[in-house]
Parts: sequence; structure tokens; C-alpha cells
Amino acid sequence: MSLLNMPLIIQDTSAVEGDMGMLWMLLSGILVFFMQAGFTLVESGMTRSKNAVNIAMKNVLDICVGSLTYWFIGYSLMYGDTSNGWFFWSGLMQGEGADLFFQTMFAATAATIVSGAIAGRTKYTTYIIFSIVMTAIIYPISGGWQWQGSGWLTELGFIDFAGSSIVHSVGGWAALIAAIMVGPRIGKFVDGKVLPIPGHNQILATLGVFILWLGWFGFNGGSQLAWGGDDAVGASTVVLITNLAAAAGALGALVTTWIWYGKPNLSQTLNGALAGLVSITAGCGNMTDGGAVLAGLIGGVIVVFSIEFIEKKLKVDDAIGAVSVHGVVGAWGTLVIGLWGVDGDTGIGLLNGGGASQLGSQAIGVLAYAAWAIVLSAIVFFILKKTLGLRVTEEEEIQGLDISEHGSIAYPGKRQRELDNE
Amino acid sequence: MSLLNMPLIIQDTSAVEGDMGMLWMLLSGILVFFMQAGFTLVESGMTRSKNAVNIAMKNVLDICVGSLTYWFIGYSLMYGDTSNGWFFWSGLMQGEGADLFFQTMFAATAATIVSGAIAGRTKYTTYIIFSIVMTAIIYPISGGWQWQGSGWLTELGFIDFAGSSIVHSVGGWAALIAAIMVGPRIGKFVDGKVLPIPGHNQILATLGVFILWLGWFGFNGGSQLAWGGDDAVGASTVVLITNLAAAAGALGALVTTWIWYGKPNLSQTLNGALAGLVSITAGCGNMTDGGAVLAGLIGGVIVVFSIEFIEKKLKVDDAIGAVSVHGVVGAWGTLVIGLWGVDGDTGIGLLNGGGASQLGSQAIGVLAYAAWAIVLSAIVFFILKKTLGLRVTEEEEIQGLDISEHGSIAYPGKRQRELDNE
Amino acid sequence: MSLLNMPLIIQDTSAVEGDMGMLWMLLSGILVFFMQAGFTLVESGMTRSKNAVNIAMKNVLDICVGSLTYWFIGYSLMYGDTSNGWFFWSGLMQGEGADLFFQTMFAATAATIVSGAIAGRTKYTTYIIFSIVMTAIIYPISGGWQWQGSGWLTELGFIDFAGSSIVHSVGGWAALIAAIMVGPRIGKFVDGKVLPIPGHNQILATLGVFILWLGWFGFNGGSQLAWGGDDAVGASTVVLITNLAAAAGALGALVTTWIWYGKPNLSQTLNGALAGLVSITAGCGNMTDGGAVLAGLIGGVIVVFSIEFIEKKLKVDDAIGAVSVHGVVGAWGTLVIGLWGVDGDTGIGLLNGGGASQLGSQAIGVLAYAAWAIVLSAIVFFILKKTLGLRVTEEEEIQGLDISEHGSIAYPGKRQRELDNE
Repeated sequence: MSLLNMPLIIQDTSAVEGDMGMLWMLLSGILVFFMQAGFTLVESGMTRSKNAVNIAMKNVLDICVGSLTYWFIGYSLMYGDTSNGWFFWSGLMQGEGADLFFQTMFAATAATIVSGAIAGRTKYTTYIIFSIVMTAIIYPISGGWQWQGSGWLTELGFIDFAGSSIVHSVGGWAALIAAIMVGPRIGKFVDGKVLPIPGHNQILATLGVFILWLGWFGFNGGSQLAWGGDDAVGASTVVLITNLAAAAGALGALVTTWIWYGKPNLSQTLNGALAGLVSITAGCGNMTDGGAVLAGLIGGVIVVFSIEFIEKKLKVDDAIGAVSVHGVVGAWGTLVIGLWGVDGDTGIGLLNGGGASQLGSQAIGVLAYAAWAIVLSAIVFFILKKTLGLRVTEEEEIQGLDISEHGSIAYPGKRQRELDNE
Repeated sequence: MSLLNMPLIIQDTSAVEGDMGMLWMLLSGILVFFMQAGFTLVESGMTRSKNAVNIAMKNVLDICVGSLTYWFIGYSLMYGDTSNGWFFWSGLMQGEGADLFFQTMFAATAATIVSGAIAGRTKYTTYIIFSIVMTAIIYPISGGWQWQGSGWLTELGFIDFAGSSIVHSVGGWAALIAAIMVGPRIGKFVDGKVLPIPGHNQILATLGVFILWLGWFGFNGGSQLAWGGDDAVGASTVVLITNLAAAAGALGALVTTWIWYGKPNLSQTLNGALAGLVSITAGCGNMTDGGAVLAGLIGGVIVVFSIEFIEKKLKVDDAIGAVSVHGVVGAWGTLVIGLWGVDGDTGIGLLNGGGASQLGSQAIGVLAYAAWAIVLSAIVFFILKKTLGLRVTEEEEIQGLDISEHGSIAYPGKRQRELDNE
Repeated sequence: MSLLNMPLIIQDTSAVEGDMGMLWMLLSGILVFFMQAGFTLVESGMTRSKNAVNIAMKNVLDICVGSLTYWFIGYSLMYGDTSNGWFFWSGLMQGEGADLFFQTMFAATAATIVSGAIAGRTKYTTYIIFSIVMTAIIYPISGGWQWQGSGWLTELGFIDFAGSSIVHSVGGWAALIAAIMVGPRIGKFVDGKVLPIPGHNQILATLGVFILWLGWFGFNGGSQLAWGGDDAVGASTVVLITNLAAAAGALGALVTTWIWYGKPNLSQTLNGALAGLVSITAGCGNMTDGGAVLAGLIGGVIVVFSIEFIEKKLKVDDAIGAVSVHGVVGAWGTLVIGLWGVDGDTGIGLLNGGGASQLGSQAIGVLAYAAWAIVLSAIVFFILKKTLGLRVTEEEEIQGLDISEHGSIAYPGKRQRELDNE
């Protein structure tokens, strides 16, 4: 049993410098972990109660699968010295606990973005396979392009501080492909009309967004990867402007829906907050506070139009707007650095100091991550379609996945389940 | 676009000394942020489901509006060198990220206290204006009396470590004025009788109180504004006795309701925990652990009687007891320092070492914050009444604000909404 | 009023070395505090809605009672120099705030484990007495056997880093005795058949498990009791492998239920995650990452079989599986150190370097804690049975404890309560 009796393989602190750096990374990772709870609540709250157990099972699965696959292979694929092979017994020797823990949570986030988009009709087995491939292969390889330190996008001058593209848009574009290939829920598009399928609990969705917002302080702030001196000031600023962008994004969506729908809408305001957060995720180390507010505000407007566009024009059934929040706004958050990003050290605008090339680098990165996520997801879902199949049967879908896939319901008061179906 | 291309304006670490101080402030601010989720759950859980979306929209709004207004003007009004003008581009130059982030969350808290009291009948537009004025002007100006460092209350020897008066009672008295001027919900006072309007989800309310209790560790502990040496010991003690006071407050209310109502009541016990927390918020740097327990215990008893008094005698409809929890107990928590507070350094009782004058200073502070909050809120709500109007129509109120103000319901299972109205 | 005017009694930092150690302990304690919210959600979500208020009242009580009794006597019983007496004014002089705060949360956890097992039929008064005795006496005395530093189990070489036995199995075995002595809920065992009594909200239960998982990072990581240098690396590794074990435990239960029940089951998967966490709680300072995965995986399988065994074979009605999660798997987590634990410093397997004796020491500890918890709980519940009585009446149980014990219901929409009873 050599695996079990190996010495503790995480003994090198070189990946994160210093005691305070490790503390900040670990605490940030703990905050990012909690985002899985946020995703669970947002996704289940914004969909029917007959599929809520399935949503919970997918989100619990993502953190479980992601933790194991990313530890086993993903981390060394993304960061490791793979001269001795790809797997953890070589890769982890150069890493250490706080960093692996933090990075694991990012991999799990990339996977879980997909689960909401395809809620209510996807086979659980199929989702498991996708989640494994996402956290073990798709995310780690493309993540290494930039975050490995000497990847080709890093060489190009591409900036993505905490992952608007690397995490969110990869998840978002994968969600787009998944939603297209799985197809819409029964009753979404009927006789050329787009019908609403409202969620079942907007308070849980609100709580979920607060938890995501909370976790995002670790997601963006922890991406400083250090604490102390300039890094402490830097990470504090990151957290501050992350909050400003989220606030602006929510208000942007709130006002947009007020003008457009006639009333300020909660679920779109919640999506606006998330859009504000995604808008600043790439640029939170390269943005003034005013710039962050504007980036978030525009992100909050974009997300409302994008959700409508994807649903009404593209006729793609993204059950919770994940493609718009993470994919479209992820691209926006990456590009905005080329528009009004500033050099983190000098404070000089990147547009002035070679900004055209910066915008170009950002665009290349956006396209590269989109292409990668789209192609790889399409391959995986194509193979799954030809083998396991992607969808449950029509009967199972109407009955609800909680019964058909898991044999239990979310709210087992005797008549509760009827509420949704009447 | 000079605003967007300005250098990063937060580069001075003078406001919070040292790397560890910044870390503690930032983490505390993150905990206080999460209190917004707690307020959302407490307020929506303790009111009807037909107004739950509106509650969520108000609480989300508070953090959004508070983050932007306090950054834009409030922080410099409260702490800044305003020689170059009031706005952020001058004020922030002396600040830094962790401190602004932390203080922002306090402003948002002061605003959000009001939202619960006037639940179920207030126009959303009206609430938005009030939230802006509260976080931009009312809270920052009076906050500066003490926390600016050389304000008139500081000179007087007034003690309010984390804001029993400065945050909570300001919010609580504003809530009182708001509840009076908006008037009671339909069905609250009928033919001289006071009718209960029970909430819709006590489990969410319980979760909300746990989240508030959690966040309060940052609220009080972070108010040490530093970490290291005596500050580390001090902040740890603050967190410890904050927990003791909360525990004592909950038990105080639990026993009081058991004696009075015949059974131990959950929602009053939850209010008791919050009352315990408010009771120690001013004095958490100047109280022994035994003193904290007693302060919290009495706070938990006070809150039960105060809620009954305000409802039954004053005939004011405070939908969740916010005036009692934050206003009345906020005053108690401020005054108790004059009774058995101790000097934080020497441990000598303030009552012995000039305590009569201490009690006097505390009373002056309590009255000053009450007068300020009452007068300013009355002016704002009077203007709002004469212009936008304060209340929705009777039809809208009966239908629920979720439909009338936001066009959607919290629990859109087809028959869910009927549950509340039958 | 000497108690109130005593100098601040917590001024010695010797219990936790250094500023960063104190920060980590305090933050960990804050995370462990939040576990009370997790327990509330898991326990209420997995039981009937007619008893949800009672569950909330028990969990709120545990943190309140635990905070006060452990501060007043428990901490000094467990760690203190009791030469001047047992109570806080002697015991605390050697302690300091962050440590007392952290340890308080452990005492409250031990108590709250019991509340779920006996849900739906136990008198509230009875539960209060038990909670007091648990946090003031049962847990502190046996906790001191190991964690006091020179207890008899420490001398024996027993290892229990964060309390698989000291906290979880003590709570679990007490829950077993409680469940036996209180007896099953009406309708659980009818005519020799075991009937399911499903919970009422699996989404709240899922959120609860995420919160517990989050809090466990503080529970296990904080048990390093220090931060800096090797301790920072050590605590980071603890958090990392805690997460791996939880992930493996959830997957272990998921696959087990899939094979056994035909479908992957949510509530058992959630129990599997908790079982994974309990499995690594004792060994998180003495386990490789591979070893942690295996320990958690097996824990996740064990918990499914144990829950079935206790219910179907022993005919004990443990309403949420607490005996299995905390008692049985707590024993497993303690024993596994003797199987593939490693020396934390050298990384050499304990089995090689004297492992047989290590396994023996672990077994002695497991038995000692089981015997202590069983005997003491039996005495307490026996006395309670002969005096206050343990159960509510049959009518009260059928009506639900929320009405009979607390006079209010969890979901007061007019028809909501009918949902459960129809």
C-alpha cells in the first residue's frame, strides 16, 4: 500500500510565499468553496422544484469530482512539472496545500457553471462524465495557457487576473454547447412561441447570489496569490472594486429591466450582480475603482439583453442564463481591460501605453478560450450522445428528474409536489 | 475619460496599519457583507410570502446603493480630508481599500435596518431614495461625530466601539419614523385590536439570524481596526464576548417568552440573539466577559417588552421588530458602558473612575444620534410623502408588493401563492 | 458587583502563540460557529415540517447554552489549572479569547449532534437539561483525557487531531442512547415493518451540508492551534485533505446507494459527505492525501450500511442518521490512523513504526469515549425519564412539536401546515 504510506507529499511552500500568503490563499479557497452552495441555490431556485434534487446532486457531484480529479491529474496538467508523468505523485511535489486547495475550487467552479444551463432534462450519468472531463482535462489544459506562468497567452501579454475567460467563459461556452446539444426543455418553445418556465424559489436564489458574491471576494482577492506589503494593498483593492462592480452590475440590470419590462425584476437583478462580478474578474488587478464601476454597470446591462437574445433569437434554452452571465459577460470582462484597464504598478492606462495591442491580446484570449471550450465540449457531448445519450425520456422529464433519476423529491410533504405540476 | 484612466487611487496604507491589520479588516468586512444575506432572510422569513421578492429587492438594493454612494461621497464625508471637495477623488486619497470596504458595509447595514420595519406597504421608488440619502448623508455625517477621530462626541469621551448607536440606533430610529409615517399594514390594527401578521418561513429567519450572528464577529471584531499584539488579544476578546452576549440575549428572550406566553417562542428568541449582539456592540472593547453576559441578557429581555410596547401601546406597525432590536436595544447597549463598562487598558470600572460622567456622555450620545436620525428621517420621508408618495395602493398591498412592484412572485409554483392568501 | 468590574480576565496570550496563530484560531472558531446553522438546516430539512421550529429552537439553544456553560465551567474543567476551583474566574486566567472561543464551538457541536437523532418526540425541557450537562460536564471531562495535554489517553499515544472520537463519537453515542431511551417516533415501526418518515426540504438539507463542510475547514484546520512556518503548511494540508475526504465520502455513498437502491440518493450522498469529514477528523494531521481519500471513501460506504443497520436491524429510530455519521464513522476515523496513518513529521507509516500498538491505542480511545458517552448519557436520560419525562404526549407528537412545545409553526401560510399532515 505504497500510496497510503508515502510521506506527506505536500511539504514545499514555494508555490505560495510566506505564512500570510498561505493564510490568505487558504481563506480565499474556503470562500470559493462556498460558492458551490451559492450555485446550488441559484440553480435550484431558478428552476422547477421537480428537478431540485437533481440540481443539488449535480452541484455536490461537481465539488466531489472536481476535488478528486483536479488533485489526481488536473493540477499537475495545469501547473506541474510533468517530466515524471502527469499524475499527482509527480505534480504535487512542486506544489503545496493552500495553492492546490485554492486552484481546486476554481476547477470545480468551471464545471458547475454548466449544470444550471442544462437543468431539467439531462441524464445524470452523462453529466458525471462531462464533469470529470471538464475538471480533469478541459479546464486544466486551457488554464495553463495563462496561469502556468509561461504559457502562450502569458507570452502574448494577455491579462486575466482571476478568470473571466479562463474559468467563467470556459464554463459559459461549454454551457452553450451543452444547452444546444441537449436541446430545450419540453414546453419551452411551443408553436414558435417562447414560453417562460419560472423557477420555484426566488428567495433561495437571492441567498445563492449573496453567497456567490461573498465567495467571489475570495475568488478575485485570492488570485493575488500572496499577502503582505504591496500584495496586501493589492488584494484589498481587488476586493473593494469587486464589490463596486457587483453593485453596479446589479443596478445596471435593475434599471434596464425597469425600463424594458416596466418593473424592476429580481431574477435579472440577481443575474446583474453576477454579471458585475464576472465583468471585473479578469481586470480586478488592472482597473481603477471608477473603471470597475463602469465595467460592472455595462456587464449588468449586457446580461439582460444577452439572456433575451439567446432565448428569443437563438432559441437556445439556457435554464438560468448561465451562458450570458459567464460566457458573454466573461468575454466582456476580458475585453474591457483593453479599453480602460490600467497598469497595476504605474496606474497608466493600458490604452495609452500600447492599448491597441492590449485589446488585441485580450481579443485573442477571448477567442482562444471560446474556441477551445466549444470544440472540446462539442466533442465530449457528441460522444456522450452517441453512447450514453444526453436526455432522459419525455415521460421522465415531465415527471421531473428528481423522481426518475434519484427516486426522491425535494419537498416530500405529501401535496408539495403537486404544487408545481398543477 | 479621465476617471477611468486615473491611477489607482488607493495606494496609501496609512488608514490601517500593517499587513495583518489589513487582512483582519478585509476579512471582517467580508463577514459584515454577508449580514445583508442575513437581513434578507430574517426580514422575508418574518413577513408574508407575497412581499418576499420586494424584501429581497430592497436588501440587494441597499448593498448596491450603499457601496456606490458611500464610495462616491459617504466615506469622504465621514472620514475624509474634504479640503479638496467632498467626493471620492479627494477623499479616497487618504484611505485605503480594506478600510473603505469595511466601512462601506457599515453604511449598508444602517440602511438595511429600515427595510424590514416598513415591509409590505412601501413604494419601491421611495425606498430607493431613502436608501441613497441614508448611506450618502445621514449615516456618514453623524458617524463622523465619533469615528472621524476628532469629532465632538469623541471629545466628550463618548464610547461606541462598533456602533450600537452610530449604526444600529441610527437605523432603528429611522425605522421608527419610517414605520410611523408610512403607517401600518392593512389588517394590523382593526377595530382597536392588534392582529398578528405572521411571517412565512421561520427556518429562513433562523438561518438569517445565524448569518447575522456570524457577520457580527466581523462587525465588532473588525472595529478593533488592527491586528497584532494587544490588538490581536483585544479583537479576540471582542469576538468572544460578542458571542457570550448573543447567547445570553437569546436565552433572556427565550425565558421571558416562556414565562409570559407560556411557551418558548422562536421568533422572539431570534430577536433576543440579535438584541444580545446589539447590546454588546458599543461596549465590546470596554466590558468584562461577565459584564457582556449581563448586558446581553438584559438586552434580550428588553427586546421582548419593547416589541410588545411599540406594537400594542404605540400602535406602530414595525413588521419585524427592527425598532426594538436596533433602536431601543442600541440605546441600551450604549448606556450600559456607563453602568459596568471598564477601561480597556487598565480594566478599572468606568463607574469608579469617573463613571457618572461616562454615563452622562453615553446618554448625550444616545440622544444626539436619536435626534439626528429622527429629524433627518422625518424630513426625508416628509418630502417623499409630498412628492413620490410613501405607500402603494390598497389593492396593490392586498395583492402583495411582489406582483405590484416587481411583477413576479417568490414561489412561482402554480398554487404556492394561494397558500398565503387563503 | 465584583464580577462586572473585574479587570478583563483574558490577557494572556500563552494559550495560542503569536498574532497569526490567534488570527487563524479566531477565524476557525468563526467557521465552526457557522456549523450550528448547518446542523439546523440538515436536521430540519431531513425531518417533518411540523417539527422544524422545535429543531431550530434546539440548535439555537445549543450554541447559547454551550457558550455560557463552557465559558463558565467547561473550559476550566477541560484545560484549566483548577487549583483555585473549577470555575471561569480561575480557569480563564491561563487561557485567552481566541482559544476559548474556538473550544466553545466544539462543545456546542458535541451537544447539537444529539438533537437530530431524537427529533419529533422529545420534550424541550428535557433537551435543555441534557444540553447543559453535555457542554458543562460530559464533553469537557472526556475531552481533557486527550486535549488537556497530559491526559491519560495522550500518555497512551492516542491520536485524535480534531475530534472524530472526542467530539463526534461522544455526540454520536449519546445520540444512540437518547434515541433508544426516548423511543421511536409514532409511525416509524408498525407491525414489524420499518416505515420511512421523509424529511420536508432536501434543498435546505443540502445547503446545511455545504455549510457544515465549510465549517469543517475551521474545525479540522483550526485544530492545528497555530499558524506560521510548519504550522501554516500543516494547517493548509489539513484543510486540503479534509476536502478530499469529504469528496470521497460523498462519492462513496453516492455509488453505494446507486448500486443498492438502483438510483443515486441525495440524502445518503449528503450523509456520505459528512461521513467523509468525520473519517478524516481524527487523522487529518497524520494522513497522506491518498490515505485521506481512502479513509473518506470507506467512511461514505460505512455510513449507508450503518444507517440501514441501526434502523432495520437494531430498530432504533435515529431521525437523521446522526449515530451513524458521528458515532460509527467517528470510530472508523479514529481507528484508521492505526491502519494507514503516518507520522506527521517524518511521514513514516505508523503501522511500520509501531503501528500495532498505535492501532491498539486508537481502539482503547474509541472504546473509552464510547463507554463514557454511553454511561453518562444513560444516567442523565434515566434521571430525566424518572423526573421531567422524555417524550411529549401522543397527541402532541401527532400535532407536531412546533405547536405543542412552541406555539407556532415554521411556515405560517394558512394552508402550509396541512401539506405535511394530509
